[in-house]
Amino acid sequence: MKVISENRCFGGVQGVYTHASRATGTDMTFGLFLPTEAAEGPVPVLWYLSGLTCTHENAMVKAGAQAWAAAQGIALVFPDTSPRGGEVADDGAYDLGQGAGFYVNATQAPWAAHYRMWDYLADDLPDQLFATFALDRDRQAICGHSMGGHGALTLAMAHPGRYRSVSAFAPICNPTGAEWGRKQLRAYLGPDEAAWARHDASLVMAEAGFDGPVLIDQGSKDQFLDNLRPETLAGAMAARRQPGAFRIQAGYDHSYFFVASFMEDHVTFHAEALWA
Amino acid sequence: MKVISENRCFGGVQGVYTHASRATGTDMTFGLFLPTEAAEGPVPVLWYLSGLTCTHENAMVKAGAQAWAAAQGIALVFPDTSPRGGEVADDGAYDLGQGAGFYVNATQAPWAAHYRMWDYLADDLPDQLFATFALDRDRQAICGHSMGGHGALTLAMAHPGRYRSVSAFAPICNPTGAEWGRKQLRAYLGPDEAAWARHDASLVMAEAGFDGPVLIDQGSKDQFLDNLRPETLAGAMAARRQPGAFRIQAGYDHSYFFVASFMEDHVTFHAEALWA
Repeated sequence: MKVISENRCFGGVQGVYTHASRATGTDMTFGLFLPTEAAEGPVPVLWYLSGLTCTHENAMVKAGAQAWAAAQGIALVFPDTSPRGGEVADDGAYDLGQGAGFYVNATQAPWAAHYRMWDYLADDLPDQLFATFALDRDRQAICGHSMGGHGALTLAMAHPGRYRSVSAFAPICNPTGAEWGRKQLRAYLGPDEAAWARHDASLVMAEAGFDGPVLIDQGSKDQFLDNLRPETLAGAMAARRQPGAFRIQAGYDHSYFFVASFMEDHVTFHAEALWA
Repeated sequence: MKVISENRCFGGVQGVYTHASRATGTDMTFGLFLPTEAAEGPVPVLWYLSGLTCTHENAMVKAGAQAWAAAQGIALVFPDTSPRGGEVADDGAYDLGQGAGFYVNATQAPWAAHYRMWDYLADDLPDQLFATFALDRDRQAICGHSMGGHGALTLAMAHPGRYRSVSAFAPICNPTGAEWGRKQLRAYLGPDEAAWARHDASLVMAEAGFDGPVLIDQGSKDQFLDNLRPETLAGAMAARRQPGAFRIQAGYDHSYFFVASFMEDHVTFHAEALWA
């Protein structure tokens, strides 16, 4: 694992590392915040999955999460959102290809060669992280923003017992029913919509739910509400009696100013589960 | 004043605005965070001056200051660091010309035409801000990072009674004695070093001091210590018995991870003075 940078941050270390991924077949870069307590032994870890166009860096510099993670003594992982590089297929659009991995294992050409973000986050990166850093594999939680909220919810529900809690900021709730989803799922997984269902948080919530608490925040002035379809997830959570909260935050949009505004709530929510 | 963007943020509004500056003779862009209390009436204001290469945006998205300002009910202003645009003189270097105004009124060609950041921050922007927004002109404080720390300290000491408190993160403390300073002061103000002295925080501290509390944070692993010369300001503060604190923070560098780590301390420090 190659150290790109390490900066002292809130008494801990904000690092950026690159490693060879067996899942994507490329080098991958991620950010990792280790609180000061990691010097003494393994600490709980909160995964943060980013949205369309983002790299490992966006949340790491704009979400203000380290302040709250440091206060709670938990680590933060900021993975990239797709494989990258000259050998990796791309599309001119912001919402397909590099920066838009959508947290699936692609089965269709030209994407299948490298676009295996599901395996990267479910297996490859965890294996390498827990082998390298002072992180407690038994105390994991996961959150994300927009496309990353979709990733966090679908990964969490697909791995019962792994994540103690899940949360999302303005997640893509129903990708099988919106432009943010149908386009990418068709490209990455092919036209058979049966293969899409396990990547739709609202459908999985209705079918399986999550074995821990769920927290969702959605801004009422989000400019992408038609693509996010929060009503589908809120409805599925309520119908299932899923323990958790779905909150509409008046006046907030889709930006990192919204994410930062509620980051303390999310980190505190996860810390309660992680330290329980 | 033209609205570039307004985002709901920590219960208030993070705005970005452009206006015609009579000081610089250009359009200037700044960020302004108004806490929710500004809807009820004028609120205290903390100025944040940025460092070399920065625009209004860097601290606005990376310093995490809005969380603490919202908690204290105070506004934050994030000015740009220089005039900009095709008609404005520039230099290929990162440390001279656009993005490197150094908070002086240039007297030398080709800079004198637009590089009047001292007047912009001392007179022009305040006049326009207080005429437009719900800000309390009698409750101002100022802080900055690196070149912005230099600007905050020199502006504060030159305007007794205006700012209730001043603070800086890794300020350029002694520009008349370091590469970060001598190059710019010569270019903007000419070869007569007598004209430079009022723009050297350590010299002004020794001569005049500040009529309120001072807080300085400096990382021990800052990669620019030779250019910042913290020992000159720490010595001047101690020799003068200046009320305040000069703190060395072990292991921190010059980055925004350092700034963010101590932002709560600085905002709280200023809030105490602003609400006194």
